[in-house]
Amino acid sequence: MPSANASRKSQEKPREIMDAAEDYAKERYGICSMIQSQEKPDRVLVWVKDLTVQKADEVVWVRGRVHTSRAKGKQCFLVLRQQQFNVQALVAVGDHASKQMVKFAANINKESIVDVEGVVRKVNQKIGSCTQQDVELHVQKTSTSQAVFRLQSGICHLFRETLINKGFVEIQTPKIISAASEGGANVFTVSYFKNNAYLAQSPQLYKQMCICADFEKVFCIGPVFRAEDSNTHRHLTEFVGLDIEMAFNYHYHEVMEEIADTLVQIFKGLQERFQTEIQMVNKQFPCEPFKFLEPTLRLEYCEALAMLREAGVEMGDEDDLSTPNEKLLGRLVKEKYDTDFYILDKYPLAVRPFYTMPDPRNPKQSNSYDMFMRGEEILSGAQRIHDPQLLTERALHHGIDLEKIKAYIDSFRFGAPPHAGGGIGLERVTMLFLGLHNVRQTSMFPRDPKRLTP
Amino acid sequence: MPSANASRKSQEKPREIMDAAEDYAKERYGICSMIQSQEKPDRVLVWVKDLTVQKADEVVWVRGRVHTSRAKGKQCFLVLRQQQFNVQALVAVGDHASKQMVKFAANINKESIVDVEGVVRKVNQKIGSCTQQDVELHVQKTSTSQAVFRLQSGICHLFRETLINKGFVEIQTPKIISAASEGGANVFTVSYFKNNAYLAQSPQLYKQMCICADFEKVFCIGPVFRAEDSNTHRHLTEFVGLDIEMAFNYHYHEVMEEIADTLVQIFKGLQERFQTEIQMVNKQFPCEPFKFLEPTLRLEYCEALAMLREAGVEMGDEDDLSTPNEKLLGRLVKEKYDTDFYILDKYPLAVRPFYTMPDPRNPKQSNSYDMFMRGEEILSGAQRIHDPQLLTERALHHGIDLEKIKAYIDSFRFGAPPHAGGGIGLERVTMLFLGLHNVRQTSMFPRDPKRLTP
Repeated sequence: MPSANASRKSQEKPREIMDAAEDYAKERYGICSMIQSQEKPDRVLVWVKDLTVQKADEVVWVRGRVHTSRAKGKQCFLVLRQQQFNVQALVAVGDHASKQMVKFAANINKESIVDVEGVVRKVNQKIGSCTQQDVELHVQKTSTSQAVFRLQSGICHLFRETLINKGFVEIQTPKIISAASEGGANVFTVSYFKNNAYLAQSPQLYKQMCICADFEKVFCIGPVFRAEDSNTHRHLTEFVGLDIEMAFNYHYHEVMEEIADTLVQIFKGLQERFQTEIQMVNKQFPCEPFKFLEPTLRLEYCEALAMLREAGVEMGDEDDLSTPNEKLLGRLVKEKYDTDFYILDKYPLAVRPFYTMPDPRNPKQSNSYDMFMRGEEILSGAQRIHDPQLLTERALHHGIDLEKIKAYIDSFRFGAPPHAGGGIGLERVTMLFLGLHNVRQTSMFPRDPKRLTP
Repeated sequence: MPSANASRKSQEKPREIMDAAEDYAKERYGICSMIQSQEKPDRVLVWVKDLTVQKADEVVWVRGRVHTSRAKGKQCFLVLRQQQFNVQALVAVGDHASKQMVKFAANINKESIVDVEGVVRKVNQKIGSCTQQDVELHVQKTSTSQAVFRLQSGICHLFRETLINKGFVEIQTPKIISAASEGGANVFTVSYFKNNAYLAQSPQLYKQMCICADFEKVFCIGPVFRAEDSNTHRHLTEFVGLDIEMAFNYHYHEVMEEIADTLVQIFKGLQERFQTEIQMVNKQFPCEPFKFLEPTLRLEYCEALAMLREAGVEMGDEDDLSTPNEKLLGRLVKEKYDTDFYILDKYPLAVRPFYTMPDPRNPKQSNSYDMFMRGEEILSGAQRIHDPQLLTERALHHGIDLEKIKAYIDSFRFGAPPHAGGGIGLERVTMLFLGLHNVRQTSMFPRDPKRLTP
């Protein structure tokens, strides 16, 4: 019934057909010439996902990869794949196909790309393993990786869509910089003509400069580089940062709430628009659906400490959270509030960078926050000090060489509005939303101390 | 009438007010304490752009920068700026303001950020230089740079919006790579733990790998690095690339037309949504509006050669276009077809990279194209060779060491669909759409051989 043309030379040639004289279908199959854009035929290629019962009895052309092929007497079943969809194509000896043609089909290498013409037929018995159960060229799901990266593309899209709607401006910040952005540690060095330069560890300075230049609300998406020699499930040496910075009127909670709402809009958008992809991933990596509250739950650091202590953890008031304690806290919060997403506010001043605004009511606390998904940190943010004098004091307190951060401090001398922001790791958000367990599953070409190819 | 509070310490303190005893308005002005998010007052700050006659006689709070201040007898005029908008605020001795308060206002440093409460008053005589001519706190345009970068944010947004609507998937490609992407020249070297790595000169290999992995249509936006020691108006060592790659059915024109249409959608979107910004830039840098046709004009290279020769240029059939000839061609095309945007198709094979698909009808031509805005190249693209054997032949012809491109060639061995694509320089598109003359005007923090800060 279908006539098949392999669109490329397969690696091994199919066995020679000995009795070509008897092949009444020899015009109906064979190896295509390479497509070099010689012609523009008016042939329409139909998508595999569009092969439904509405197309029954139509003659269609489909281009797909050979996913599996199985010969059975006078029949050959090819499963043709297109992205996450696939369809079964039957080549059977009859009016349109010869014995030789079935043999040819059975010999096509897996993963070859083929063009197939065929009739869509309604099937009498539903095919239980497929979504489109009613047509002979039926569609089923396969490729998990495709689903992960389509969802990741969705996160970027929803992030931007939400922020553009909120009036943010997208900015582009340089990655090659003349001095290490956050002190000298963990920075990659680049040979820059006759000098050295560095790869930016964060766009923070540039985001803040845009706020000082009165852009009010900015975001950027781009690579972030960390020369950390750590080989964990959640660290990469290059990852994609979704960064936000925003001026506020009176309280940094204005910004914190805007960021949390942006994440909520992303979660909602994913659950609305990417259900197919989520289910596809869940089939291979089962996971509870991601839960969140509106408005987002906000806990203060001292409340979290109390919960942890009640669970038997010993911690000082100004200690930072260890990774195991973060995870434990995530479980406790889930039990008590039934949410996988929450804000932890008012971190101890001692564990945050020097540019973090101290809490005016409690000198040991700061106006800073982390956000968590399934017990792992996905965002770190704070109100930044916008006053050069206080910034200088805090830098000295941290033992930082003022010469090295002069440009940073100077950028606030012409008057800067109060502002806050934060940075999100894209791969972590993808991993934790889907309940995956390694950030390498959500980076197409992961980079770590031991991995630099492809 | 208005009471003014400078929200930050100004660099120099205003002159001491000698006779504070007589100051009946002393509660109405002064230096604010630093905003450390201590309180969340329910005071609403009004945007400068929203100060229209509809708000006449309302009492409003506005936060802005002091753009200019001019004292005149018992009055002081402050112009308060907010992004691209500004408004005039009058401080005059009367019921609400004392002589001292007017003096204080007159002494506020330019660029200080102030909070002002005031009444919006309709003015009797229109203020000709302003757009909102009817209110005393009137709004006028200022900052050109803001407009350029808001428009650039718009280009990114329109690029993505158009491609997502066309079914493209956004991908993230690594910037640190183990081998130079396009041969060894012009590549930055990075110290990577104990080894060397390189900064990606293009995401092309990764885009193509995604096509081989059946993503069908992908795009990415990210930094691109070129260690070119050239100091021209249109070269940067780091710029933002908007990249597209797409599988096609029969002819690379399917892709070329999709890319051209994406650019047309961007131009239309800019002219519809960013008219304010365009006019603001034009005021300082006058320029003809950007013209384009639908569908986009496509010329073949040989046609362009004929036009240039008719204009007196001497060029061989397989010579590449020099920059002056590109510009001349742009003028000739504008005269003849009245468009600032066109496609030049079918470049000589000899001047294109080894992976460019040869034209099957003419061995000296290739299935490749550039796109031009106002006579300057903004995109270079082609059908790529998807057959490992032909790719090997072409690499050998170019004298390329096969060992160095083994991974690239191997990625086509499992079967690759025919595909084409291209890369766009964001800063160039912004520059040429607005008719600016230096790419440094459209990069917030430009990088060239001599410039690495801020």
